[in-house]
Amino acid sequence: MSKHRHNRSAEKLLGTSPGTLTYVGQEIEHATKIKRIDYNATDYSIDDSSRLSACKIPPAEAPFVSWVDVDGIHEPKVVAAIGQQYHLHPLLLEDVVNTEQKPKLDLYDDTVVFITLKYLHHSRQRQEIDIEHVSLVLGKNYLISFQEERSKDIFEPVIERIKASSGKTRRNGADYLLYALMDVMVDHYLLITERIGEKMDELEEEIVEERASQQTLSTLYKLKRELAFIRRTINPLRDIVGTLLRGESDMIQHTTIPYLRDLSDHVNQVIETLDSYRELIAGLMDVYYSIVNNRMNSVMKTLTIVSAIFIPLTFIAGIYGMNFSNMPELRSPTGYFWTLLVMGCIALGEIIYFKRRGWM
Amino acid sequence: MSKHRHNRSAEKLLGTSPGTLTYVGQEIEHATKIKRIDYNATDYSIDDSSRLSACKIPPAEAPFVSWVDVDGIHEPKVVAAIGQQYHLHPLLLEDVVNTEQKPKLDLYDDTVVFITLKYLHHSRQRQEIDIEHVSLVLGKNYLISFQEERSKDIFEPVIERIKASSGKTRRNGADYLLYALMDVMVDHYLLITERIGEKMDELEEEIVEERASQQTLSTLYKLKRELAFIRRTINPLRDIVGTLLRGESDMIQHTTIPYLRDLSDHVNQVIETLDSYRELIAGLMDVYYSIVNNRMNSVMKTLTIVSAIFIPLTFIAGIYGMNFSNMPELRSPTGYFWTLLVMGCIALGEIIYFKRRGWM
Amino acid sequence: MSKHRHNRSAEKLLGTSPGTLTYVGQEIEHATKIKRIDYNATDYSIDDSSRLSACKIPPAEAPFVSWVDVDGIHEPKVVAAIGQQYHLHPLLLEDVVNTEQKPKLDLYDDTVVFITLKYLHHSRQRQEIDIEHVSLVLGKNYLISFQEERSKDIFEPVIERIKASSGKTRRNGADYLLYALMDVMVDHYLLITERIGEKMDELEEEIVEERASQQTLSTLYKLKRELAFIRRTINPLRDIVGTLLRGESDMIQHTTIPYLRDLSDHVNQVIETLDSYRELIAGLMDVYYSIVNNRMNSVMKTLTIVSAIFIPLTFIAGIYGMNFSNMPELRSPTGYFWTLLVMGCIALGEIIYFKRRGWM
Amino acid sequence: MSKHRHNRSAEKLLGTSPGTLTYVGQEIEHATKIKRIDYNATDYSIDDSSRLSACKIPPAEAPFVSWVDVDGIHEPKVVAAIGQQYHLHPLLLEDVVNTEQKPKLDLYDDTVVFITLKYLHHSRQRQEIDIEHVSLVLGKNYLISFQEERSKDIFEPVIERIKASSGKTRRNGADYLLYALMDVMVDHYLLITERIGEKMDELEEEIVEERASQQTLSTLYKLKRELAFIRRTINPLRDIVGTLLRGESDMIQHTTIPYLRDLSDHVNQVIETLDSYRELIAGLMDVYYSIVNNRMNSVMKTLTIVSAIFIPLTFIAGIYGMNFSNMPELRSPTGYFWTLLVMGCIALGEIIYFKRRGWM
Amino acid sequence: MSKHRHNRSAEKLLGTSPGTLTYVGQEIEHATKIKRIDYNATDYSIDDSSRLSACKIPPAEAPFVSWVDVDGIHEPKVVAAIGQQYHLHPLLLEDVVNTEQKPKLDLYDDTVVFITLKYLHHSRQRQEIDIEHVSLVLGKNYLISFQEERSKDIFEPVIERIKASSGKTRRNGADYLLYALMDVMVDHYLLITERIGEKMDELEEEIVEERASQQTLSTLYKLKRELAFIRRTINPLRDIVGTLLRGESDMIQHTTIPYLRDLSDHVNQVIETLDSYRELIAGLMDVYYSIVNNRMNSVMKTLTIVSAIFIPLTFIAGIYGMNFSNMPELRSPTGYFWTLLVMGCIALGEIIYFKRRGWM
Repeated sequence: MSKHRHNRSAEKLLGTSPGTLTYVGQEIEHATKIKRIDYNATDYSIDDSSRLSACKIPPAEAPFVSWVDVDGIHEPKVVAAIGQQYHLHPLLLEDVVNTEQKPKLDLYDDTVVFITLKYLHHSRQRQEIDIEHVSLVLGKNYLISFQEERSKDIFEPVIERIKASSGKTRRNGADYLLYALMDVMVDHYLLITERIGEKMDELEEEIVEERASQQTLSTLYKLKRELAFIRRTINPLRDIVGTLLRGESDMIQHTTIPYLRDLSDHVNQVIETLDSYRELIAGLMDVYYSIVNNRMNSVMKTLTIVSAIFIPLTFIAGIYGMNFSNMPELRSPTGYFWTLLVMGCIALGEIIYFKRRGWM
Repeated sequence: MSKHRHNRSAEKLLGTSPGTLTYVGQEIEHATKIKRIDYNATDYSIDDSSRLSACKIPPAEAPFVSWVDVDGIHEPKVVAAIGQQYHLHPLLLEDVVNTEQKPKLDLYDDTVVFITLKYLHHSRQRQEIDIEHVSLVLGKNYLISFQEERSKDIFEPVIERIKASSGKTRRNGADYLLYALMDVMVDHYLLITERIGEKMDELEEEIVEERASQQTLSTLYKLKRELAFIRRTINPLRDIVGTLLRGESDMIQHTTIPYLRDLSDHVNQVIETLDSYRELIAGLMDVYYSIVNNRMNSVMKTLTIVSAIFIPLTFIAGIYGMNFSNMPELRSPTGYFWTLLVMGCIALGEIIYFKRRGWM
Repeated sequence: MSKHRHNRSAEKLLGTSPGTLTYVGQEIEHATKIKRIDYNATDYSIDDSSRLSACKIPPAEAPFVSWVDVDGIHEPKVVAAIGQQYHLHPLLLEDVVNTEQKPKLDLYDDTVVFITLKYLHHSRQRQEIDIEHVSLVLGKNYLISFQEERSKDIFEPVIERIKASSGKTRRNGADYLLYALMDVMVDHYLLITERIGEKMDELEEEIVEERASQQTLSTLYKLKRELAFIRRTINPLRDIVGTLLRGESDMIQHTTIPYLRDLSDHVNQVIETLDSYRELIAGLMDVYYSIVNNRMNSVMKTLTIVSAIFIPLTFIAGIYGMNFSNMPELRSPTGYFWTLLVMGCIALGEIIYFKRRGWM
Repeated sequence: MSKHRHNRSAEKLLGTSPGTLTYVGQEIEHATKIKRIDYNATDYSIDDSSRLSACKIPPAEAPFVSWVDVDGIHEPKVVAAIGQQYHLHPLLLEDVVNTEQKPKLDLYDDTVVFITLKYLHHSRQRQEIDIEHVSLVLGKNYLISFQEERSKDIFEPVIERIKASSGKTRRNGADYLLYALMDVMVDHYLLITERIGEKMDELEEEIVEERASQQTLSTLYKLKRELAFIRRTINPLRDIVGTLLRGESDMIQHTTIPYLRDLSDHVNQVIETLDSYRELIAGLMDVYYSIVNNRMNSVMKTLTIVSAIFIPLTFIAGIYGMNFSNMPELRSPTGYFWTLLVMGCIALGEIIYFKRRGWM
Repeated sequence: MSKHRHNRSAEKLLGTSPGTLTYVGQEIEHATKIKRIDYNATDYSIDDSSRLSACKIPPAEAPFVSWVDVDGIHEPKVVAAIGQQYHLHPLLLEDVVNTEQKPKLDLYDDTVVFITLKYLHHSRQRQEIDIEHVSLVLGKNYLISFQEERSKDIFEPVIERIKASSGKTRRNGADYLLYALMDVMVDHYLLITERIGEKMDELEEEIVEERASQQTLSTLYKLKRELAFIRRTINPLRDIVGTLLRGESDMIQHTTIPYLRDLSDHVNQVIETLDSYRELIAGLMDVYYSIVNNRMNSVMKTLTIVSAIFIPLTFIAGIYGMNFSNMPELRSPTGYFWTLLVMGCIALGEIIYFKRRGWM
C-alpha cells in the first residue's frame, strides 16, 4: 500500500473515449510472458513460447481445457491482440489493464464470465502489503488469466498440480480451474490475515503490559488503515462468489458448486476475522487511552501531594523569617522546636488525609 | 480462548489441493472412540467397541435410528474411513477435521444435512472458555456426530435419556436426535452467558461503589472480547436453525418443527442477552471514566485550593522577610500582629470564595 | 428490574428433556386463582370458583366467547391440567411457566395462537419497574390468559367493561378480547414511558442548570439500563402485532384489524419515544461532561492565575531576603518602596495579559 | 416544542374503551370553525357558516369537489357529528382528536384515505417551534381537513388559489387537493429547515472564530433536540407519500402521481438536510471540544513555564536567605551579583528549552 | 460550496402554485446560449445560432440523433419555450430551473427520461468546489441538456469527439449520448476525489510528523464537510444509473448497457473512496487528539518534576531562614554545608524516583 496512492490516473483518463486501453500501473521493463496450458484428465501440454498466434478460442467441443496465463498487462497492444483473438468486449479489456479497477464480476452475453481481483501478499523487502491486479476470463472451455508482471507467477502452484498428477484439477472443466485460481488468491488473504493477527497479539501484549508509547498508537492507526484497505479489497469477493453460486451463469457446472461454497466460506471467514480485528483495535485503543489517563492522574497526584504538604510548611517558615522587630515567638528558646513540631504534625495530618482518600 | 489464536493453519494449508484432510487442532494421544447406538421406541442397543466396520448406512426402511457418536477427529484416516462408508463428500470431511471452520449448515444432494458447531464450556482449570469443534451429519435414518476428543463425551445426557426411557427421543426420528444434540449445546451457551452475567454483576457493583481500578478496565476489556467471541460463535446458529425451520431439507419432519422453533428461541435469547451485556459494558465504561475523571477533578481542586490560599500568604511573609534597611512596618511594635490578621482575612476570604463556587 | 437477574435458571434446566414444566420465577404461596367468563352481546356469566373441571374447549359453534383467566403459574400441575383439557402442546406450556421466556407469538396448527408478553408496571414500594410474565392462548372461540400471581389481576379493567355494558368487547369475538387484553398491557407501557419522561425532565433541568453531580450520572446510567430493558421487552411486540395484522392466522377477523392497527401504532409510539429518550440521554451526557470539563478548566485557570502572579513576586521578595553582605539596593532608603512599586507593576501587567486572553 | 411534553395523556386514557374521543391537547375557548368549499373547473362556492348540517357525503357522481375545512378539534361532539355524517370509523375520529398521535396513513375499506400530519411553524412570540395536529380525510369526491384552532387557518393559501383562478387546483379532483394541502405543510418544513440552517451558520461562525462559550454548547444541544424532533415528525411522511405513490389506494388518479413524486422529493430533501445538519453538529462539537482543550493546554503551559522558571530561582534566593553563621558566599562582595547572573542564566536556559519544545 | 448555502429559496417558493418556474440560483447577465447538434455515423451539423425555433422534436424515424445543448437556465421564458416545443411536463421544467433540486431520475410517460445531476469542479480562483445544476432530457432520438451558464461549456469534450471522428458516440443513439454526458460528469467526480486524496495525504503527513496545530483540525473539519457534501451529491447517482441499468425505460438500448455498467462502477468507486476518506479522517483525528494529549502530559510532567524537586528544598531553605534566637544548627560551622548535602541527596532521590517511574 504505497503512500502515494494517487497517481493522477483520473487526470490521465479525463476526456478519453470510454474503452480506450490506458495502463495506469507501475512502469515495467520486461516483455509480457504468455503461457498456454492445454490439459484433460489423461494428458497436458504447456507452451511457454509467449507466441500470441497460438492463443485462439478452442473449438466448442474440444476435448481439453485451454488455459492462457498472461503475466504482464503493461503492453496495451498485447492485451488488445489477445482481446481480438478471443472476441472480448473493449470495456472488458479496459478493466484488465486498469489497475485501479475494484474487484468485480461481469457477465458478457452469457458466454464470457469476467472477474477482476486483487492479489495481496506481504512484501518482505518493503515491509508492506503488495497489491497485484488480476483478471480472469472464463469462456466455454478456456480460461485466460491476466496478472501484473512481478517477480513470480502467482498461479505456479496450480500449474504444478496440473503437471504433478491427473487429480481434481485435471479431471474437471474450466470452471473448476477458475475456482482453483481464485482459491490460491483467497489462501493468500488468509495468510495476510494471520500475519496481521500476529502483529495484533504483539500490540495487545505491549499495551496490556503498559509498555505502550505514542509509537504504539501510530502502529494501531496504520494497522487500522491496512485492515480497512484489505476489507475493501476482499469485500466484493463475497458478491462475486455469490453470483457464481446462484448459478447466474450457465458456465458453472453442478459439481463445482460445493467447491465454490467452500471458497465462499473462506472469504466470509477472512471478512469476519478482519471485522473482529477492527473491533479489537477499538478496544485496545480504549485500554491504551485509559492507561495514559491513569499515568497522567498519578503524575497529578504526586504534584498535588508534594505541593499540598510543603506549601503550607514553607508559609510557616516564611512567617518566622519575617524581620519584624516585635515577634514574641522568636525570642522563646523553645520556639524553634515547637515550630518544627507543629510542621511535623501538619505534614502527618495531610499524609493521613491523603491516604484516607486513597491518593497515596 | 487461548492467547495464541493463530496456529498458522493457513500456512499449513497453502498450496494443498482442496478436500485434503488436514487436522489443525491440538495434538491428542488417545485413539478415536466410536459408539454406535441403534434405537427405536421399543428397544435400543449400544455398541462401544469402536469398530469401524459396524458403521454402515442403514437400509432406507430400517425400523430404527442409527446414531454413530465419534469422539475424536485427530486421526484423518479414521474420519476418511467413516466418510467412505457413508459416502460423504471430501469437502464435508475437510470441514469435520478443520477445527478453524466457522459454524455452518451445508446441504449435500438433498440426502445429507451437514452442520458444524462450536461447543463452548467454561473450563475450571484454565479459567477460560474452552471450545470444541463439533460436526453433525444427518442422513435418512442415521446421524453421525463428530467431536474433538476431550475429557468427556458432550452428548452423554442424550445417551442417558435414550437408555433411561422410551421418551420423546426414542419415539422420534433422526431429525429429533439432531435437535436434541443441538439443544444440549445451546443449553451450554445459556450457561456460559449466565456465568458472564454474574461476572458483570460483580464488576458493576465494583464500579458503582467506586472500588474500581485500572484492573477493572482490563477485566471489562477481556469480557468484551469474550462476548464478541461468543457472539461470533453463536450467531451463525441463527441461520442454521432458520434453514432447518424453513424446511429447505425434506429430512426435517413436521413434528420436529416446534422443537426447532423452541431452539431458535433459545439461540435468539442468548444473542439478545449477549448484546445487552455489550451495551451494559459500554455504559459501565462511561461510569468508570466519569468516576476517574471526578477523582482527578477533586485532586486538582485540592491542589488549587491549597496553592491559592498559601502562595499569596507566603508572598506577604516574603515581603517582610526582605532585608531593606528602611522598612517602616518592621519597626512598628504591632506590625507583626497586623500582618497575621491581614493574612487570616485573605485566607478567610478565599475560603468563602471557594465555598461559594462549590469547590470545597 | 431486580438486581439479581440471574437465578441460575439455565443450570436448573440443564439436561432436562425439552417440554418439561419447570417454574423458574419467584416463590409464591397463594393457590392459583382461575376465573371463567362466558359472554356474548346479550349476556355474561362469571365463575370464579377456581375449579379446573369447568375449563373445557367450548363446542366450535358455541354462541358465546369463553375466557379463562388464570392468575398464577407457579403450580406446574395446574398449568399441566389446563394444558391437557385444551390440548395444548407441551412446549407451549413450558413457555407459559418459564418467566425467563422473551415475548413471542407462536402458531400451533392454525387452531391456536400463542402469545407471551411482559406486563410492566412501576412498583411504588420497590421504586423500580416490576415485570410480570403473561401468556395468552387464543382458540376458536375461547381465550386463556395466564399471569403471575401478584397483588392484583391485571385484566380487571376488561372484566369490569364486560360486566358494565354490552359494549364493543361483548359484541365482538375472542380475537377482539385478545386485542383488548394486549391493549391494557400496552397502555401500561405508555404510562411507564411517561414516568421515565418526567424523570428525564428533572434530570435535564438539573444538568442544564448546572446542579448535576456524580450522582446524576449514575441516575442517567440507571435510566439508560431501564430504557434498554423496556426496549428489549416491548420490541418483539412489533413483530407479534405485525404477524396478527398480516392475517397469518385465520382466527383474526376482518373487523378486528383496525383495532390491531391502532395497537401497532401505540407500540411504535412507545418504541419511538424510548429511542428519542435514549438519544436525549446521550445528549445530556455530552452536556454534563462539558460542564464538568468547564468547571475543571475554571479550577485550573484560578490555579494558574494565582500562581503566575504570586510566584514571580515571591521570587523578588526572596532576592531581597538574601543575606549577602554587599547588596546595594538594600541600603537605599527608597529601595523598599521601589520594590513594592515594581511588584505592583508586574502584578498589574499579568492581570492585563490574562484579561486579554479571556482567562479572567 | 414545549418543555412539558408530558401532559399525562396516557394516564387520562388508561382503562377507557378504544375508540373513545378524548381531546388531550391545549385548552381552547373559541368555537370550532367549519368552512365548506365546493368547486370545479368552472365555478366555486364557499359556505363559512360553520353549520354542520351542510356537511354531507356528496353523491358519488357529483360534478364538483367538496372540501370541508374544520378549524378546531377541541369539541369532541362536533368531531363526532362530522364523523357520523361521513360514516367515519370511531378509531379514525380518535386519531383526529388525539394530538399525541404520530403522523400516519390508514386506508379504511378502500373508500377513505386517512392521513394525520404535524404542521410545524416557527412561533415568533415563543421563540420555539409550534406544532399543530392536522388530519386529512380523502373520500370519493370530498376531502375533510381537521386542524387545531390557532391564530390562523393553515390552508388559507389554497383557499386563495381556488378563489383566484380556475388553475390546476380547480381543474383537478379531491386527490390533487389532498396533495395541495400536504404541499403547503411540507413547504413549512422547508422553511423551518432553512431557519435552522441560518442558526447553524451563526453557531459555526461563533465556534470557528473561537468565540464559543458553554452557552454555545447548550444551544447546540437544544438545536440537536429540535432536529431530532422535526426528524421524527417528518420521517413518517416518507412512508405516507410512498403509499400514495405506489397506488395502494384507487383514489389517487394517474395525473396526480407526478405531483406526489415532487412532494416526495421535497420530503426527502428536508430529511436529507436535517441529517446533514445533525452530522454538522457532531463535527462542530468536535471542533468546540478541541478549542476548549487547546485553551486548557495553553493555560497549563503558562502555569508550567512560570512555575518552572521561578520556583528554582526562588529556591536559590532561599538558600542565601538562610541564617547560617558560616556561609562563605555571603561575605564575598561580588557574591550577590554572581548569584543574580546565575539566576539569569538558569532563566534563559529554561526559556530556550521551552522555545525549542514549542511551548512558548 | 459557498458559505451562505441558504438563499431563502423556500421563502421565495412559499405559496406559489406547484409547477411555477422560479430560478433560485445566482444572478447571471449573459443571454442563454443554445447549440443544436444533429449527427449520425456518417455526418454531423452544428447550429449555434441560439435560435429557439430550430429546436423541435425530430420525427420518430429521423436517421440522426438531435442534441440540444442549452447553456443557461436563468431565463424562465426560454426554458418554458423549449418545454413547450418538446411537450415537457411543467414539474420537469420546474426541476430544470430549481438549482436547489437534488439529483434524481424521473420517467415521464415512457417517452421521456429526465435526469438532474450536479456538476462539481474545483474552482481555482475561489479555492473551493463549484457546483453547477445540470439536467438531461432523453427523448426517442433527441436529448436536451441544460446547464447553468458559467465560463465554459461542460460538454465541450463530447462535442469535440463528435466533430473529430465517426467513433462510438457517432455510431450510437441518443441513449449512448446520455451515457457520454454523464460519464464526463462522473470523470470530474473522480478528479475531485483525487484532489481531496492529495490534500488528505498532506494532512496525514502533517499529523503523523507531529506538525499539526489547531488549524489542522479546522482543515480536517472543513474537509469532512466537503466529503459529506460530495457524498450527498453523488449518492443519488447510484440509484439513477441503477434504474437505467435495470431497463425500467425502453429507451436504453441493449448495447449501451455495458457502458452504463462501467459508469455504475465508476460511481461506486467514487463513493467507496469517499467513504474510506471519511474513515481515514476519523482515524487521523484520533491520532491528532492523542498527540495533543501526549504533549499535555509532557507539560504536566515537567511541572510536576520541577515542583516536586524544588518545593521541598525551598522549604528546607525556609526553615533555616527563620529568625528564632535559638536555632542550634545555625551556629554550627558546617551546618550550611550539611544542609546543602541533604538538599542534594533529596534532589537526587527524587530524580531517581522519577526516572524509575518513567517520567523523565
